[in-house]
Amino acid sequence: MLFHVAMRVNLPPDLDPQIADELKRAEKQRAQELQRAGTWRHLWRVAGRYANISIFDVDSHEELHDILSSLPLFPYLDIEVTPLARHPSALPES
Amino acid sequence: MLFHVAMRVNLPPDLDPQIADELKRAEKQRAQELQRAGTWRHLWRVAGRYANISIFDVDSHEELHDILSSLPLFPYLDIEVTPLARHPSALPES
Amino acid sequence: MLFHVAMRVNLPPDLDPQIADELKRAEKQRAQELQRAGTWRHLWRVAGRYANISIFDVDSHEELHDILSSLPLFPYLDIEVTPLARHPSALPES
Amino acid sequence: MLFHVAMRVNLPPDLDPQIADELKRAEKQRAQELQRAGTWRHLWRVAGRYANISIFDVDSHEELHDILSSLPLFPYLDIEVTPLARHPSALPES
Amino acid sequence: MLFHVAMRVNLPPDLDPQIADELKRAEKQRAQELQRAGTWRHLWRVAGRYANISIFDVDSHEELHDILSSLPLFPYLDIEVTPLARHPSALPES
Amino acid sequence: MLFHVAMRVNLPPDLDPQIADELKRAEKQRAQELQRAGTWRHLWRVAGRYANISIFDVDSHEELHDILSSLPLFPYLDIEVTPLARHPSALPES
Amino acid sequence: MLFHVAMRVNLPPDLDPQIADELKRAEKQRAQELQRAGTWRHLWRVAGRYANISIFDVDSHEELHDILSSLPLFPYLDIEVTPLARHPSALPES
Amino acid sequence: MLFHVAMRVNLPPDLDPQIADELKRAEKQRAQELQRAGTWRHLWRVAGRYANISIFDVDSHEELHDILSSLPLFPYLDIEVTPLARHPSALPES
Amino acid sequence: MLFHVAMRVNLPPDLDPQIADELKRAEKQRAQELQRAGTWRHLWRVAGRYANISIFDVDSHEELHDILSSLPLFPYLDIEVTPLARHPSALPES
Amino acid sequence: MLFHVAMRVNLPPDLDPQIADELKRAEKQRAQELQRAGTWRHLWRVAGRYANISIFDVDSHEELHDILSSLPLFPYLDIEVTPLARHPSALPES
Repeated sequence: MLFHVAMRVNLPPDLDPQIADELKRAEKQRAQELQRAGTWRHLWRVAGRYANISIFDVDSHEELHDILSSLPLFPYLDIEVTPLARHPSALPES
Repeated sequence: MLFHVAMRVNLPPDLDPQIADELKRAEKQRAQELQRAGTWRHLWRVAGRYANISIFDVDSHEELHDILSSLPLFPYLDIEVTPLARHPSALPES
Repeated sequence: MLFHVAMRVNLPPDLDPQIADELKRAEKQRAQELQRAGTWRHLWRVAGRYANISIFDVDSHEELHDILSSLPLFPYLDIEVTPLARHPSALPES
Repeated sequence: MLFHVAMRVNLPPDLDPQIADELKRAEKQRAQELQRAGTWRHLWRVAGRYANISIFDVDSHEELHDILSSLPLFPYLDIEVTPLARHPSALPES
Repeated sequence: MLFHVAMRVNLPPDLDPQIADELKRAEKQRAQELQRAGTWRHLWRVAGRYANISIFDVDSHEELHDILSSLPLFPYLDIEVTPLARHPSALPES
Repeated sequence: MLFHVAMRVNLPPDLDPQIADELKRAEKQRAQELQRAGTWRHLWRVAGRYANISIFDVDSHEELHDILSSLPLFPYLDIEVTPLARHPSALPES
Repeated sequence: MLFHVAMRVNLPPDLDPQIADELKRAEKQRAQELQRAGTWRHLWRVAGRYANISIFDVDSHEELHDILSSLPLFPYLDIEVTPLARHPSALPES
Repeated sequence: MLFHVAMRVNLPPDLDPQIADELKRAEKQRAQELQRAGTWRHLWRVAGRYANISIFDVDSHEELHDILSSLPLFPYLDIEVTPLARHPSALPES
Repeated sequence: MLFHVAMRVNLPPDLDPQIADELKRAEKQRAQELQRAGTWRHLWRVAGRYANISIFDVDSHEELHDILSSLPLFPYLDIEVTPLARHPSALPES
Repeated sequence: MLFHVAMRVNLPPDLDPQIADELKRAEKQRAQELQRAGTWRHLWRVAGRYANISIFDVDSHEELHDILSSLPLFPYLDIEVTPLARHPSALPES
């Protein structure tokens, strides 16, 4: 089940750089785990912003929420979730 | 070069059904042409709305604009375009 | 799987009354079918507006979209869909 | 009398973790008291956000305000209240 | 039970003047009935706009919705309802 | 001359409780003075928010501004002022 | 008593040109009457828009509303009214 | 004197095609006149929208307004004007 | 050349009172200099807000920006600038 | 490939002046490097705001993002990116 998730990162500029770097390191590690698991299907950078647009493939809202709310950067994220359905004009094989 | 394109369709409810159906038929045909050409990479339906979220892969802004502005439904579309870049946490192979 | 769906009805005041009444009749019939099927779990009227807040229980985004987009009033609806998950403070039995 | 209440929690990321945990513990305890009392009828998590959508059943605006403004997390909550009425298409038994 | 109700009237400029006048006449008559009944407690004109701010005193959300949705101008009204509670700083006698 | 004034209070959660309590005490005292003087005609609590909706009766904009800007909580208030006029459908005696 | 009034004119492009011209002629005549009377103190065009920013000097909200609501273009106007007070830094003679 | 002007074109889809084409022809002709005169310094298409972003170089607000309000498409344009000044980091020769 | 400038002052409530007073003193002094110079043509207080609406008369955007950005309160100001042109209905002598 | 980039700078007023000055110095140096390289094609100050409107000419979204996200002021910037295409009414030589 696909979800479009837009995340905007609001790290305070005066956050201790070491804390910030550790958060980013942990976020990257977790994101790549989820990509390898096929859960985090797409992850794109919004050009010009500390933000991303992602596509998640999960089996329930609980799973989606657990994943997003456990992201290291979650306390600094502004998240918009949009449920996606199959489009009638999408090619069968897509 | 990837673009995130959110399209909302505002067909007037009192539009002649034949005209509406022909527009939708032509739109579907064109969308599938572009998907087969690899230009319209992803096309998802926003659940609950007459709207879609798409990913386009084009070589220039002119190409993107020509494609979108020549869509049969273009006069009825509200479109948001967001340029996407490679995310530093995206897996190399994604 | 629960979805919070807020619907605002924008029937043009100058719509033929007979057409409007038939749309409302068909909408009510369909809504009650879905309630009896356990799909449309809650349906509340927003006091003071031609709008409702509903809770749907469906198994997929496709099912949700098919239901909503096939509602007789769909062409006149402004819809917001919000995926709901189990709240950690909700009583087990709720 | 039913109210739709949307709550968004804005806990500062740099809040002392002990204070934050104590607030959450007290909030959960209070929420479950109110659910058992039948006042807090529904409590759902908005998937992907530190936010909830709830349905309250109270006898007056004063009661609603006293409940919400006395929630441990109230100073950190952004709250939208929407009065709900019975929908003409709701099944009699709902 | 008090409700703050903000109403904005969107009569199309090209509406048949006779229909418009009849709607306004019926609206005024109904408004004055409700004021005499003590339900429509306050009715103020927003200076510079075809809009009003009102205070209603009703016993239920259903009563509020029935009153507002049966106003002759209802199809042309954009309505915001805000539930009001007693303010701790309000004088006892107010 | 009547003004509709909507006030939203944004007290920082980490404000020294003693300062906060003193501000609230002084605000209540001032509000009740103005109510007794007939200037602050109505003061209602917005159910669910640290906000109020008030009706002021003053003789000039300067008087209104002096009153509002001298409220103890003024530095923490987000204020919307709407000038009110007599409504043509208001009962003569209202 | 000064009011800042921002007016945006939304004349439908397909309005009968004769009706439009007559409305504009009458609006101009009325505007100049009010300027000569000292009521319409300032009238500026917003560069690039069919909109104006004006300063009105009236003695009551009723007078302001009567003037604005009786403007020939009123049915096509989107109006924002802001009450102005004397600024503490304004020169005494201004 | 430079102005940033963002124009969004809202041509009704059901506008007579001949009228629409004539408007576009006249708009293009006028735009090119102004570009040759050095007044319309830059004209870019917003990719994906029937909108443009332009830079105008004029000597007065009256000149800017006369130019924009006399554009053939003006009745269908939503225009945002932003005055531009020389940036302290701009290269001297730019 | 006239500009409409709306300024909202966002002084943090916990700013050192001495610093705040000095900023306000310097701001008032500068504002009165500019008024005497005929540059700051009008300065009105928005009733109920720490905000003003002003009319500036300058010869270039650079002059406008230098004036506004050198105001003592500039770091705390939220500013909206709107270029004003002569209105066709304004009396010749205005 | 052209991009319209609107940047608003949100430097906290209480930022250490030395840090602020160093950031601005480095930002100016970087901006002038990019202008000389032909990448930062236009850089204008929005009159009255600590904001700029720029035109960038880059070959990819990655290049655009790397440039913007490596600007010294990036942590304090609110950025809007709009892809620009050639306008059909632009003069061939423009």
